[in-house]
Amino acid sequence: MAVVTIIGAGAMGSALAIPLIDNGCTVKLWGTNLDQDIIKDLIEGKEHPKHKHKLPSEIEFYYADELEKAMFGSTHVILAITSDALGHVFEKVVPYLNNDMIIATVSKGFDTNKLGEIVILPEILKEKLTEQLSNIPIVVVGGPCKANEVIYRSPSNVVYACEDLNAAKNFKELISTDVYNVKVDTDVIGTEVSVAMKNAYAVALGFAEGFKQREGYTHNNTKSALFTVALEEMILLSEALGGKIKSVIGLPGAGDLEVTGEAGRNRLLGEVIGGGMTSFDALAKMKDEDITVEGYSAVNFGYRLSINLIEKGLLTKELPLLSALYKILYNNESCYASIKKVLNEYN
Amino acid sequence: MAVVTIIGAGAMGSALAIPLIDNGCTVKLWGTNLDQDIIKDLIEGKEHPKHKHKLPSEIEFYYADELEKAMFGSTHVILAITSDALGHVFEKVVPYLNNDMIIATVSKGFDTNKLGEIVILPEILKEKLTEQLSNIPIVVVGGPCKANEVIYRSPSNVVYACEDLNAAKNFKELISTDVYNVKVDTDVIGTEVSVAMKNAYAVALGFAEGFKQREGYTHNNTKSALFTVALEEMILLSEALGGKIKSVIGLPGAGDLEVTGEAGRNRLLGEVIGGGMTSFDALAKMKDEDITVEGYSAVNFGYRLSINLIEKGLLTKELPLLSALYKILYNNESCYASIKKVLNEYN
Repeated sequence: MAVVTIIGAGAMGSALAIPLIDNGCTVKLWGTNLDQDIIKDLIEGKEHPKHKHKLPSEIEFYYADELEKAMFGSTHVILAITSDALGHVFEKVVPYLNNDMIIATVSKGFDTNKLGEIVILPEILKEKLTEQLSNIPIVVVGGPCKANEVIYRSPSNVVYACEDLNAAKNFKELISTDVYNVKVDTDVIGTEVSVAMKNAYAVALGFAEGFKQREGYTHNNTKSALFTVALEEMILLSEALGGKIKSVIGLPGAGDLEVTGEAGRNRLLGEVIGGGMTSFDALAKMKDEDITVEGYSAVNFGYRLSINLIEKGLLTKELPLLSALYKILYNNESCYASIKKVLNEYN
Repeated sequence: MAVVTIIGAGAMGSALAIPLIDNGCTVKLWGTNLDQDIIKDLIEGKEHPKHKHKLPSEIEFYYADELEKAMFGSTHVILAITSDALGHVFEKVVPYLNNDMIIATVSKGFDTNKLGEIVILPEILKEKLTEQLSNIPIVVVGGPCKANEVIYRSPSNVVYACEDLNAAKNFKELISTDVYNVKVDTDVIGTEVSVAMKNAYAVALGFAEGFKQREGYTHNNTKSALFTVALEEMILLSEALGGKIKSVIGLPGAGDLEVTGEAGRNRLLGEVIGGGMTSFDALAKMKDEDITVEGYSAVNFGYRLSINLIEKGLLTKELPLLSALYKILYNNESCYASIKKVLNEYN
């Protein structure tokens, strides 16, 4: 039977233990240095502090200094680490890997590789692998999936994508249940671009929510128009990088953008700025409250990536909404005027 | 200068007067028999009873028995009539048409033609035209557009589609402003299928909202998964009828489904059923409250259309979510179990 080690005991990492346990797998949940208090609570049978829910007692919990034990006998590894720490944590995991294992990653975003290029996260992982391990399959996970709803066993649909389709199918067999529904695919690029960029575009959907405070009435038309423009730009970005349209209009893109635009920190940042606060003030406020907004860095990475793609001739021109997002967040440009202009020129 | 007659003084018909007046057009707003009280209020300078907003005094208002005056000198006609009454009302308009005019329609749905086939609404209009008028361009309007937000001049983006692209461009020139943004297209079928079917699928998105009452927690993952399945089925339906994917993933499909799934009567019907009421009780309740739900008949038309397309070999199999919607609404099948099954089999 499969032994699955989950790297990272945050909300999503611990939630994914549920379908695995439901399927009778052995699950080893390892916490990073930042997860010490979480692991302590879980070992003591308390609720997980992030989603306020107890986890099944069958799960084995491991502290940061117990990685070797956590990886012992492991057949499958799930990386559930924030995108900025992913490469660093994965380095520690690599010595315990072998070619019979399969790795899945639920981290979302972009990062910069050794050459200084902006790449999707599986590329960061590949850089850390030794030559011997270079064929180990890496499965990326996308789709609308709030961790607490996985714990509640609410019907959820996700995509597991891997160039090696059999590896994705293998993981699916392990983890899919009658409520945690897995669709397999080979489009790693389209999936990763979608999951990273939907955080960026969710900030724009938040703008439209914020306009309500400023103008005194709803801006549902604006929000839906921005949703459409976002989809179109995600398709262009994905295709320029070699990804497929189906992932963008499927669960990782349209599906995840729908849920991310309804609630969450990315939308909240947009809402505050759309309501009239300057982006610099909004970001300072969120920093004070220790809130990290993934969409903020995704806008930066995505915008710079789009400029690179233009230079390489892979994209014909700037993506208007992404450029507006960048200029609003990083250059403090007027939000309402910029968004109004993007929509006026969308034809 | 253009003289635009708007047929139907409901929420959308009267809202579209705003961008036209902003552009200096002459606007003649004609009310049907059901709009008598609205026209009376508007003539007296009162608020429009539907969106509680005064309309510009430049608009000319006409009662049901003043159609000839309303159509006098008209160069453009906008039909803003509920889908079930569209053909009947259009019959009265036809005698006042000539080949130099352009017609636009904002009605959404399907209807049955003289041969008993389910068709998109422009086909119903074409049936009513005399042979002499058979080349008069009919422009269909799609996209996320709540009437009151057009009145508030909130940035809104819509598609005007016509087989004769110049006719769509002509209308665009007349009506587009810096906030009412018009994109032209030739894909009439894709646009019409999208605007009709998004009402049907919004009922499904409502189910997920209703599950919250039943299960005690949010079902955002479910809602977003259903959003994705809806898009995919709308693409299949549109393509089987000869429409294009771009309209479904653009403003008329994805864009309008996003706003329709956030609020409105279609979502409300779904929410009540998802919360545990049988569909028959939910429909009786809405009938008592005199609430018409466009999505209810759209599910019926869409489902029957899909069966016809299968018989013709244009669709390979039933669309699982549409079939589930039909069986939940018309056969009182269990909502939660049906939706769970659809999502479990989506792979």
